[in-house]
Amino acid sequence: MIWLRIALIGGTGNIGEGLALRWGRNHEILIGSRKNEKAEYAADDYTKKLKEKGVSCNITGCDNATAVSRSDVVVLSIPYEHVFTILEQIKGSFKDQIVISPVVPMKKVDGHYIYTPPDVGSAAIEVKDALPNGTKVVSIYHSIPSEKLMNLDLELDYDVVICGDNEDAKHVVSDLTREIKNLRPLDGGPLIISSMVEAMTPLLLNIGMKNNLKSPSIKFC
Amino acid sequence: MIWLRIALIGGTGNIGEGLALRWGRNHEILIGSRKNEKAEYAADDYTKKLKEKGVSCNITGCDNATAVSRSDVVVLSIPYEHVFTILEQIKGSFKDQIVISPVVPMKKVDGHYIYTPPDVGSAAIEVKDALPNGTKVVSIYHSIPSEKLMNLDLELDYDVVICGDNEDAKHVVSDLTREIKNLRPLDGGPLIISSMVEAMTPLLLNIGMKNNLKSPSIKFC
Repeated sequence: MIWLRIALIGGTGNIGEGLALRWGRNHEILIGSRKNEKAEYAADDYTKKLKEKGVSCNITGCDNATAVSRSDVVVLSIPYEHVFTILEQIKGSFKDQIVISPVVPMKKVDGHYIYTPPDVGSAAIEVKDALPNGTKVVSIYHSIPSEKLMNLDLELDYDVVICGDNEDAKHVVSDLTREIKNLRPLDGGPLIISSMVEAMTPLLLNIGMKNNLKSPSIKFC
Repeated sequence: MIWLRIALIGGTGNIGEGLALRWGRNHEILIGSRKNEKAEYAADDYTKKLKEKGVSCNITGCDNATAVSRSDVVVLSIPYEHVFTILEQIKGSFKDQIVISPVVPMKKVDGHYIYTPPDVGSAAIEVKDALPNGTKVVSIYHSIPSEKLMNLDLELDYDVVICGDNEDAKHVVSDLTREIKNLRPLDGGPLIISSMVEAMTPLLLNIGMKNNLKSPSIKFC
């Protein structure tokens, strides 16, 4: 296992909290937010939660740009609607980081969630286009509900599909995924596959609602 | 259980064979093909295979138009490339049938399968638009590999997502699905959801190839 500095952009939200708690034991976690104080408050909260589990960690809070500039891996744990405004503000802080996109563009129509990809095909490709060339975008974690991720008492016996154009970056993210007990990363192929992976999020939301399943996830078998 | 007359358009192919074998015990099966003799040959073959399992059945072969005109339920077990040519030829035979679409538009790009929905959003909606108003299109079975469906010794312990705009038709197809042991139909919502369901087929093909999994399917949990 390689020790990494992981920036969680929008790290005060649920996905950010889930990943901070899951990776806090093994890596340095940088919680990014638009407001310093909010990030620091969340970092203290996550540190306390891990301490209660007997886990010591190195989690700090700062603004998004600082978190990115200090990191090896960046997770875009922000809703699609805000991604490109934030990336426009902080893209100067990116250089050669691995950028993890669990981002999904979707809307609710007549009570059902619909996947609404941008013209370039997927959120992940749009993210790639918005960042400097040296960054390596990896698309993953669309099928893990944040409430399951946040619950440390829950073993995540699920599969997640990973895709991206840089094999080394995919290996790093696959290893990070395997550190979350029972979670299995499955290679989906290059980034062009991402639209099919992102579409799983609204599908899972609809299936949960219509069939009375609480936050369903996926296993391939 | 209601006894149904089920037409399998393109019923000489793998999906057609799988469904004929799975439903042959309980329903009348009409194998449709462009050529009468080919349909009759397949019908005899499936009858023999079921007989070997001690199952008596009523499976006959005929041309696609005749199969449709005699049926309550029609399955479009044909590749996307041929669907609309065939529907154009036989649409006069449709009246008020339930039409099951497992159809997926996709192409292979650089060794990976990509979902390529038509402008209307999905194959299922395109099918609906091509048929008379009284028919009820239900989209299902995109995540069950045909080789698993054809193997009667295999219990299909998987989930399939069903979507459509007519609730009665969805109930009939859900019941048909439950007759296949362990296969669980999950309601995905209206037909507009179908693009997200259809996208699972190329995703599963890619996951199978890249991870050395043989014909993976899906469970929601």
